[in-house]
Amino acid sequence: MRNIKLLVEYDGRNYVGWQRQENGTSIQGTIESALHQILQESVNVIGAGRTDSGVHARGQVANFRSETALSVEQIRGGLNALLPEDIVIHHAENVAEDFHARYSAKSREYSYHITLEPSALLRNYAWHVKYRLDRSLMQQTASLLVGVHDFESFCKTQAEVDHHRCTVQRAYWEEQGSRLYFHITADRFLHGMVRTLVGTMVDVGRGYTSYEDFKDILAKKDRTEAGMAAPAHGLVLESVIY
Amino acid sequence: MRNIKLLVEYDGRNYVGWQRQENGTSIQGTIESALHQILQESVNVIGAGRTDSGVHARGQVANFRSETALSVEQIRGGLNALLPEDIVIHHAENVAEDFHARYSAKSREYSYHITLEPSALLRNYAWHVKYRLDRSLMQQTASLLVGVHDFESFCKTQAEVDHHRCTVQRAYWEEQGSRLYFHITADRFLHGMVRTLVGTMVDVGRGYTSYEDFKDILAKKDRTEAGMAAPAHGLVLESVIY
Repeated sequence: MRNIKLLVEYDGRNYVGWQRQENGTSIQGTIESALHQILQESVNVIGAGRTDSGVHARGQVANFRSETALSVEQIRGGLNALLPEDIVIHHAENVAEDFHARYSAKSREYSYHITLEPSALLRNYAWHVKYRLDRSLMQQTASLLVGVHDFESFCKTQAEVDHHRCTVQRAYWEEQGSRLYFHITADRFLHGMVRTLVGTMVDVGRGYTSYEDFKDILAKKDRTEAGMAAPAHGLVLESVIY
Repeated sequence: MRNIKLLVEYDGRNYVGWQRQENGTSIQGTIESALHQILQESVNVIGAGRTDSGVHARGQVANFRSETALSVEQIRGGLNALLPEDIVIHHAENVAEDFHARYSAKSREYSYHITLEPSALLRNYAWHVKYRLDRSLMQQTASLLVGVHDFESFCKTQAEVDHHRCTVQRAYWEEQGSRLYFHITADRFLHGMVRTLVGTMVDVGRGYTSYEDFKDILAKKDRTEAGMAAPAHGLVLESVIY
C-alpha cells in the first residue's frame, strides 16, 4: 500500500472547514471526491490541521493510502485539473508507510492578519480592527504564550482531547504600517485556540482587558474568561513541520 | 462651490471598470450613487485613471464638486457606511477649485502581479503564468520602456487621444520567490497599455518574442504587432501623484 503526502493551499471562504461534514462542502471532502475520480477508489485523506470554516491554508499537509500505479506527478496534475481554483495541490510525494499527517507532525505554524484601516483588497483575508491598539503591550502579551502552557482558557470544548497542554515555540506580532501579523508556532493547537488568543490579545491592545488579566486567564484554564474569537478569515495555516 | 478629493481603494472583480457604463455596475457609478444619498444632489465623480473591468486600485484618486456643508470626515464616513465592502474611501479632503483628478495628475503608478505557481489565495489578484520565464531578459525589456516613447503599439484604439507619447519614469520587475511584480510609473497611460506591455514582456520571457522584436514593436507604433494583453485581475492602480 502506498502512502502519499500532499501539500495543499486553500481559500477557506467557501468551505465548512477542512473536515468532512454533513452540512456543507469541506476541503477534505472536495479532495477525496477528486481523488475518487482519479484513482477509481475511495480514499480517506488525513489533514495535519482541522482548520475551521473560513480559515485559509498556505501549507496544509495531508496524506492518503492507495494502491494506484499513477505517479505522484500524475496525481498532483489530476487533482489540480479537477479541483476548484480555491484549492491547489503544490506538491505530492511518496512517503513511508507510517507517515500520518496529523500524528507525525512536530509543529504547526499559523498566522493571523489584522488591518487597522478598512481594505477593499484585503477584506477576505484580514480582520479589520477599528480600535487603537497598544502594540508593545500586545507584543508583551504574546511573549507570555511561549513555553509549555495549558490553553484550556483559549479553546472551544472538545470531548476528544485528553489534555490542553501545548508547547509554543514562537509567538509574536509583526507590524507593517497599518497591518499586523500574529505568528505562532506550536506542537499542537486546540480547537479555536489561535482565534481566541488573537481576540483576547486585541482586547488587551485596546485596553479592555489588562495584561495582568490576560495572565490570570491563561492561568485559570476556564474558557469563559477569555475574549471573543477573532473572525476566521484572518487566519492562515502557514506550514506543518515533521 | 467646494471641490473634494477622495483616495479610493477597490477590488475591481465585480465591476465593469471605473467608468460609468450602461451595461453594468461601475466604481464611478457606485460612488456617485452613494454620494447622491449622502449629499441629496447629483455629482459627477472624476477619476484619475479609468481602470478597465476587473482591474483593482489601492490608490485611485477622484474629485467632485458640491455645495454640501458636510465635513470631509462626514463624507468619508458616510461613503464607507453606504459603499459595498469592495470599495473603500481612505481619505477625503477639500482641495483648490481648479484641482482635477485626471488633468492635474503628474504621474500614475501601476503594479502587475504574476505568480509562477498556481495559488488559491492569490487567484483573484495575480496572473498565473505557466511558462518558464527568463527574468533578466524581462528586466532588460522593461528598461527599454523608461523615457519618452510612443506607445501606440501597446494600446487599444482610442478615438479620443491625440497622441500616444508617454513619459515613463520607472519600469522594472521585482522578484519574490515564485512571484513577480512589474512596477511602472508614467505621466499618462493609454488604454490597455500596462496589460499589453506585461503580456508582451511575458512573451519575451518565455522566448516566444525576442528582445529585438520587442524593440521593433515599440518602434513600429502598430497595435497588431504586440502580444496579448495580460488578464485584468493582476493589475493594480497603486497611486497617483500631483
